[in-house]
Amino acid sequence: MKVGFIGLGVMGRPMAKRLLDAGNELFISRVKSPSEFLVDAGATACANPREVAEAADIVIVMVPRTEDVEQVLFGADGAAEGLRPGSLLIDMSSISPVATREFAERIRGGGTSYVDAPVSGGDVGALAGTLSIMAGGEAEDFERARPLFDVLGANINLVGDVGAGQTTKVANQIIVAGTIQAVAEALILAEAAGADPAKVRAAISGGFASSKVLEVHGQRMIDEAFEPGFRIRLHHKDLEIAMSAAEALSVELPATRQMEQLMASAMHSGLGDLDHSALFAQLRGSQAADSGAP
Amino acid sequence: MKVGFIGLGVMGRPMAKRLLDAGNELFISRVKSPSEFLVDAGATACANPREVAEAADIVIVMVPRTEDVEQVLFGADGAAEGLRPGSLLIDMSSISPVATREFAERIRGGGTSYVDAPVSGGDVGALAGTLSIMAGGEAEDFERARPLFDVLGANINLVGDVGAGQTTKVANQIIVAGTIQAVAEALILAEAAGADPAKVRAAISGGFASSKVLEVHGQRMIDEAFEPGFRIRLHHKDLEIAMSAAEALSVELPATRQMEQLMASAMHSGLGDLDHSALFAQLRGSQAADSGAP
Repeated sequence: MKVGFIGLGVMGRPMAKRLLDAGNELFISRVKSPSEFLVDAGATACANPREVAEAADIVIVMVPRTEDVEQVLFGADGAAEGLRPGSLLIDMSSISPVATREFAERIRGGGTSYVDAPVSGGDVGALAGTLSIMAGGEAEDFERARPLFDVLGANINLVGDVGAGQTTKVANQIIVAGTIQAVAEALILAEAAGADPAKVRAAISGGFASSKVLEVHGQRMIDEAFEPGFRIRLHHKDLEIAMSAAEALSVELPATRQMEQLMASAMHSGLGDLDHSALFAQLRGSQAADSGAP
Repeated sequence: MKVGFIGLGVMGRPMAKRLLDAGNELFISRVKSPSEFLVDAGATACANPREVAEAADIVIVMVPRTEDVEQVLFGADGAAEGLRPGSLLIDMSSISPVATREFAERIRGGGTSYVDAPVSGGDVGALAGTLSIMAGGEAEDFERARPLFDVLGANINLVGDVGAGQTTKVANQIIVAGTIQAVAEALILAEAAGADPAKVRAAISGGFASSKVLEVHGQRMIDEAFEPGFRIRLHHKDLEIAMSAAEALSVELPATRQMEQLMASAMHSGLGDLDHSALFAQLRGSQAADSGAP
């Protein structure tokens, strides 16, 4: 299959390599030194997203932010200029579900199909081809993308219409953040009350407090082992998307708003490149500051 | 064993009955009509907590609030007057861990051992003898209480010194509340963004967002099935304990504070006797109010 790949960052590079290794003809844009290995492995370097879209039947976008997607699609020499009826655009970036529906409308206006398919699983999952893929779009477009998704991911779901993938990703990130903060506050209180947080965690595991976060991130908090994992900086970006979507939809999300602010504070404290379980350290550190302790 | 039981409410009655059925000699106080069946079944009615403590070797307290424990222990004709060296006081109420340590110090001053052992599992667990029991105290006192705990519960843990049981219960309730709120906000955003909350929930189950709450309470939110379960009113009480402990220990718990306020708002909206998954309805209802929708 002729596949275009726009956005060769930490996630995009291993994903593009897997697609190439699976036998697809790969077209990439703006090749910088970290992605030259893809050309060496057989990918075709194009001058810009427009040329990628002209050369490929399916174009995947994997860039950091909503404005980056807008730029590579609709900026000068953007992919939209090269897409045509019958093309399929798959945006695997994690961006605003509201903006996604606008982008899809514009792209579909030109006769090109659009699927949003953000992922979770990080660069480890991208390398291993075990990403979770949360997709939104028409069922026939999803089925057309499916062979590529199968190369990239392990847990692949079509959730609904365009935007539903991004919405699902945002929902996931809200729940993970909220659970991390709740576990952190519970363990901080336990510690302050003189209990052993490890024993508290063990005693409540298995009941209604049990979660993947209590299991994994709770242990990291107890060990104070905060190497990423998933960086606070990236999770903060996802909660910014959640809040901008909430504002666009006139929805109040008080806990999500607070978590976004907590993560911003953690970045301000220099914790942005630590695992999101380090919100425990941010919350505990603020206690010391509040109490005037050294 | 000569067991005293003070506090024969919705939880205490089935617990006392199980202890009686297990062959213990049971002494109860202030018998009102709902607990007369215990006397019919062989329990001895005493005039007050002091007489219960005089008659029994182990005295269990199971009352609603911190001030109730203080009253039955240290009020007029309180249990403290009847306890003696060698007695064991087990407080199975869910109360402040900070107050618990004060009560234990006073009781131990008279030579009586003290174990705090709050439970979770509700009246269903009390009837079935499947409560989770989170205990704090000396190991030898815990072992002495163990045969009674085995009659009452299934998941029984000694977490640490006196107060650790209450601390564990509070930690559990913080995590459950925080996870419920995060799941509720995620599903509310999903719905507002036009996605099917049931499909979103299914897509993220199994990943880092997975929890017992997403499984059980998430489904209740989707079904809008809010019969208790565990009532908002009771969970609010537990978060009040969390906040009063946090204040006593000079710990800031921003998410817990917000959850306590959300539950208070839900009670104000008449949802206090619904399951705590109805926080979804409270949060969603406040959207309609904010947006001026009917």
